[in-house]
Amino acid sequence: MYDLAILGGGPAGYVAAENAGAKGLKVVLFEKGELGGVCLNEGCIPTKTLLYSAKMYDHARGGKKYGITTENVAYDYKKIADRKTKVVRKLVAGIKMKMEHNNVEVVRGDAYIQSGSETSIVITCNTQSFEAAHLLVCTGSEAFVPSIPGVKDNDAIVTNREVLSFTAAPESLVIIGGGVIGMEFASFYNSLGIPVTVIEMLPEILGGLDKEVSEMLRGIYSKKGITFNLSCKVTKIEGHKVFYTDSEGNEHNVDGDKILMSVGRRPVLDGFGLENIPVVVERGIKVNEYMQTSMQNVYAAGDVTGFSLLAHTASREGEVAVNHILGIEDKMEYNAIPGIVYTNPEVSCVGITEEQAQSQGLEYKISKLPMAYAGRFVAENEGQMGLCKILVSAENKVLGVHMLGNTSSEFICAACMAITNGIKVEELKRTVFPHPTVCEILKEGLFEMA
Amino acid sequence: MYDLAILGGGPAGYVAAENAGAKGLKVVLFEKGELGGVCLNEGCIPTKTLLYSAKMYDHARGGKKYGITTENVAYDYKKIADRKTKVVRKLVAGIKMKMEHNNVEVVRGDAYIQSGSETSIVITCNTQSFEAAHLLVCTGSEAFVPSIPGVKDNDAIVTNREVLSFTAAPESLVIIGGGVIGMEFASFYNSLGIPVTVIEMLPEILGGLDKEVSEMLRGIYSKKGITFNLSCKVTKIEGHKVFYTDSEGNEHNVDGDKILMSVGRRPVLDGFGLENIPVVVERGIKVNEYMQTSMQNVYAAGDVTGFSLLAHTASREGEVAVNHILGIEDKMEYNAIPGIVYTNPEVSCVGITEEQAQSQGLEYKISKLPMAYAGRFVAENEGQMGLCKILVSAENKVLGVHMLGNTSSEFICAACMAITNGIKVEELKRTVFPHPTVCEILKEGLFEMA
Repeated sequence: MYDLAILGGGPAGYVAAENAGAKGLKVVLFEKGELGGVCLNEGCIPTKTLLYSAKMYDHARGGKKYGITTENVAYDYKKIADRKTKVVRKLVAGIKMKMEHNNVEVVRGDAYIQSGSETSIVITCNTQSFEAAHLLVCTGSEAFVPSIPGVKDNDAIVTNREVLSFTAAPESLVIIGGGVIGMEFASFYNSLGIPVTVIEMLPEILGGLDKEVSEMLRGIYSKKGITFNLSCKVTKIEGHKVFYTDSEGNEHNVDGDKILMSVGRRPVLDGFGLENIPVVVERGIKVNEYMQTSMQNVYAAGDVTGFSLLAHTASREGEVAVNHILGIEDKMEYNAIPGIVYTNPEVSCVGITEEQAQSQGLEYKISKLPMAYAGRFVAENEGQMGLCKILVSAENKVLGVHMLGNTSSEFICAACMAITNGIKVEELKRTVFPHPTVCEILKEGLFEMA
Repeated sequence: MYDLAILGGGPAGYVAAENAGAKGLKVVLFEKGELGGVCLNEGCIPTKTLLYSAKMYDHARGGKKYGITTENVAYDYKKIADRKTKVVRKLVAGIKMKMEHNNVEVVRGDAYIQSGSETSIVITCNTQSFEAAHLLVCTGSEAFVPSIPGVKDNDAIVTNREVLSFTAAPESLVIIGGGVIGMEFASFYNSLGIPVTVIEMLPEILGGLDKEVSEMLRGIYSKKGITFNLSCKVTKIEGHKVFYTDSEGNEHNVDGDKILMSVGRRPVLDGFGLENIPVVVERGIKVNEYMQTSMQNVYAAGDVTGFSLLAHTASREGEVAVNHILGIEDKMEYNAIPGIVYTNPEVSCVGITEEQAQSQGLEYKISKLPMAYAGRFVAENEGQMGLCKILVSAENKVLGVHMLGNTSSEFICAACMAITNGIKVEELKRTVFPHPTVCEILKEGLFEMA
């Protein structure tokens, strides 16, 4: 009898396993593919590896403004893709090591929930049977492919998974859905000189992120040559041709060597016997703030809850679930979940946006500074724009931070920490930020709010 | 009558002026050179601009491992230097604007303290007389050039100031003093392919920083071709030849087209009438935790106190001084002052080192992780090493963080914030760090300490 069985070895599952194992629980983790889940194998990590190669390509071609000249700059797509695979393998091996280190038993294969009561869950995998006191479901999500006419059996259409297995760059790319995933691939292929068209149903890219930041990023990529069709709805696809209607009802079409479908992701709820236990499922598996389902010994974490769909949310949810099993006081909060778009420049956001503050009728103060207020940004981002918006509550606590500019993704953690721990602006201002750094922009912004 | 007169427009002076002006004080700021002080004009900013060009040069030549090829990569020293000047000018203009925006009167010229009592200070500048209720002395520091035989009137010998006005790269460089300034110039010229020799009196480079991190950095730059002579004392210089003795008393010498003297800095205490007011001077101007000198209405901040000699310390000290004048509760703390070395890779440190913890007999827990535990580090730092050491007290509060690896300089602010605000490890662990980032290494390290 295991203390804990975990279905799925992605960021929710492996972090939960690591924590539970470290705390002495007897843990079995089932994974049908590779440890690391979508994030490591088909998402965050491979895309960031590709994007870094693209950044190096940008750097090699863009050195002139820094006094560096180059000739015949070229990329080798195969090598870029091979490196991505190598990086993924290395990190998968790292997770495997962590599992061993924390005495987690990893079982490879299709796990299936046979039955369950509030004291025991029975799972089968590879014809073997496993019994556990607690179950944590972390089966993740998969790309949603809408049933637009012409989608079925169309080889031109790909999701994040297939793009990542390309061994050559497409001649052109049409991206349906200008969210985070869409924009990261748009950025990558744009850097490589591939014509990219983005078709987005909403009036702005990047969905719920800060409107001003999203608009600035779109402006930057428009100048770099990406075509954006906003407020446009795809009506059908014929081979390589995507047909769409604009907000005034006019019809258009655009050709793409490949067509990337990035309109969202859906929780994976089928194929593992979830129906054999009486947990409540809504959009995803319904959970409370301890990640507990309607069955007291069954938990769910990560994309399968259908809620936040981010790797770091998943990991934190996994931690919370394990802490609840262990009786350690903890609960899940969603007010300080960062969101990063790894374009060049990057977008980094956490907390409430100005639009949300307004629609919720919140009292707030706001500081908006160009990133160029930070000396290092000027030193390292010749000719580039950036923005840092900070929202603070009437009680002088940070509500949200929204930034455009490298290297915001690396220091937004300070804002996450401030929000999570409810540190007041007066207290934050006593922090000495190293000079010169881009992160000083946070201090500059807080000064404005003094 | 001014509320506050400030001598020196560097990071202490201009930040103090900005704060005091914003809070409604009538402020006059004297500056004989350019606003921004040594940091902006001859230190932090110009070096970081040069170093970024060097990084772009590294990137252009090092793309192959990321699938990017280039030919005939070259640098134009004159353009690199010109860009540095342009960046500095832009930022100086930014400070000027801030001064105007906060109603600070800026007087250009050599200011001189004529007399002072505990109610009024009289300063002359450009034959005009100024009276102020409070005085803040921020005259900064200058490079210390030891009186080694052969130093005087030797054109080969330069300090940070002269190096920054080079319009061509030296043919070779001998650096006396392997501290932060020495190592940053060593890194810059090493990237450009210039032979660099470092002579350091102590057994390790980077003075008081974490020994393990310093040693790793030295190892990296040894491989890149820098010659390090540790525990060596320079005895004399003859033209371009530097003579030094090693720890066993053996004599050596090395030739340098230029010889950079970077053995430390000394407070500027002369030439502005400090002797006309009865403030106590030790190594620098002596101050209490409110940056108040022995005269109750005279404050000092920044390098002139001879204490921390870092731009961000200076700015914070300036803030503290102004807050004390305004009666706002605040005091200077030195337990969370970050230190960055902008080599490639960067070194970022804050708080107590392992060596200090041991020598002080402190109870501590430590986590040491390779940076490669962070997925993004692996994705963006092919073949590079890195380290993250976290020291935590018996009360589970962060004591120190010491890192080697890009982009640690940008996220160490989170550690500074944690130390400054006394956030416990349990609380820090609830923070959701964005994935994948290098900053996640902090979370990984904290996990180890659970």
